[in-house]
Amino acid sequence: MLKLFYAANTCALASHIALEEAGAQYETVRLSFSSDDQRKPEYLAINPKARVPSLDTGDGVLTETPAILAFIAQSFPRAKLAPLSDPFAFARVQAFNSYLCSTVHVAHAHRMRGYRWVDDSAAIEAMKKKVPASVSECFGLIERTMFEGPWVMGETYTICDPYLFTLAQWLEADGVDLARLPKIRDHRTRMSVRPTVKKALAEELG
Amino acid sequence: MLKLFYAANTCALASHIALEEAGAQYETVRLSFSSDDQRKPEYLAINPKARVPSLDTGDGVLTETPAILAFIAQSFPRAKLAPLSDPFAFARVQAFNSYLCSTVHVAHAHRMRGYRWVDDSAAIEAMKKKVPASVSECFGLIERTMFEGPWVMGETYTICDPYLFTLAQWLEADGVDLARLPKIRDHRTRMSVRPTVKKALAEELG
Repeated sequence: MLKLFYAANTCALASHIALEEAGAQYETVRLSFSSDDQRKPEYLAINPKARVPSLDTGDGVLTETPAILAFIAQSFPRAKLAPLSDPFAFARVQAFNSYLCSTVHVAHAHRMRGYRWVDDSAAIEAMKKKVPASVSECFGLIERTMFEGPWVMGETYTICDPYLFTLAQWLEADGVDLARLPKIRDHRTRMSVRPTVKKALAEELG
Repeated sequence: MLKLFYAANTCALASHIALEEAGAQYETVRLSFSSDDQRKPEYLAINPKARVPSLDTGDGVLTETPAILAFIAQSFPRAKLAPLSDPFAFARVQAFNSYLCSTVHVAHAHRMRGYRWVDDSAAIEAMKKKVPASVSECFGLIERTMFEGPWVMGETYTICDPYLFTLAQWLEADGVDLARLPKIRDHRTRMSVRPTVKKALAEELG
């Protein structure tokens, strides 16, 4: 059975929601970042990057949210979570998710994980100061140029939606003015009433 | 015809090499970062993110290296650049490329693009100092836990290879000790003699 390793309040939520949307049989393993579970030898044997999510598929372990999301879409084609038969449309889905992981999540991470890129404590504080501006810029670009509505890719729900929803959980804490992001704010509301989302959130935050 | 927008010495090289490997008919458009071409209105109309690469497919524009690489693999299946019929194997390819874009390239970018995440000049200098350690850590993890050899995924060349090769171009300038990365060093040599790689590099650096 598929086994998802996650920690609460992390990007693993996107994969968790996608598994629910796919109707997958899966179990979850919760890690505590405050206990540094992700750096313990038993988890490093699963994912030497010491990050979440990891998805043990039975054939092996997958990491990285965009890869896990595409794997779920391809493994459960009846759930229609991505335009699998159209390389261009599929690439647009992947481009969106790649932007989230390589730019949006990274901008956010400078608030709490600055030690990844700098050792100096004054520089870590300087990084935190820019997070409202850099995260606002990313989400503004999504709002203006990428988001089609009512779902990210238009009329059809895809694996872009749980990922956007997941990163949008952090907007207030990142100091972003949601009033300037009406499409993303409405998308968050639209997502939050889905039973799949409620179930995943209830487990992770319960 | 496919049209690749690139700038020299950027991650666009990976897509350029993949187009050569695929045997694609394509043309290239060169941008000059020193002239800030990527922020000019005509390019922002193509890619509002002001980054390279962009691939105009005729159906629309794709961005983000992992998405473009997977698109090339799917559009030219006879080139066998990814295990397209095996969702798990394909996801492993995508996980590797996702790690490159979200973690490895980001670690490197703190040397020259620190202004993305901080405004303070002392903090930008502090960021530069950590690049040798953070990039070494990323490549060390690839060397020890991901790279199978002789190609990234083992016996078969995939879209992971041009992307790893591209980021490995910057190791010396990032202050990384290549003697500790014998597999990645040998991979770089193995890539550099491929006619496809020579052709792409000759155009970009010529």
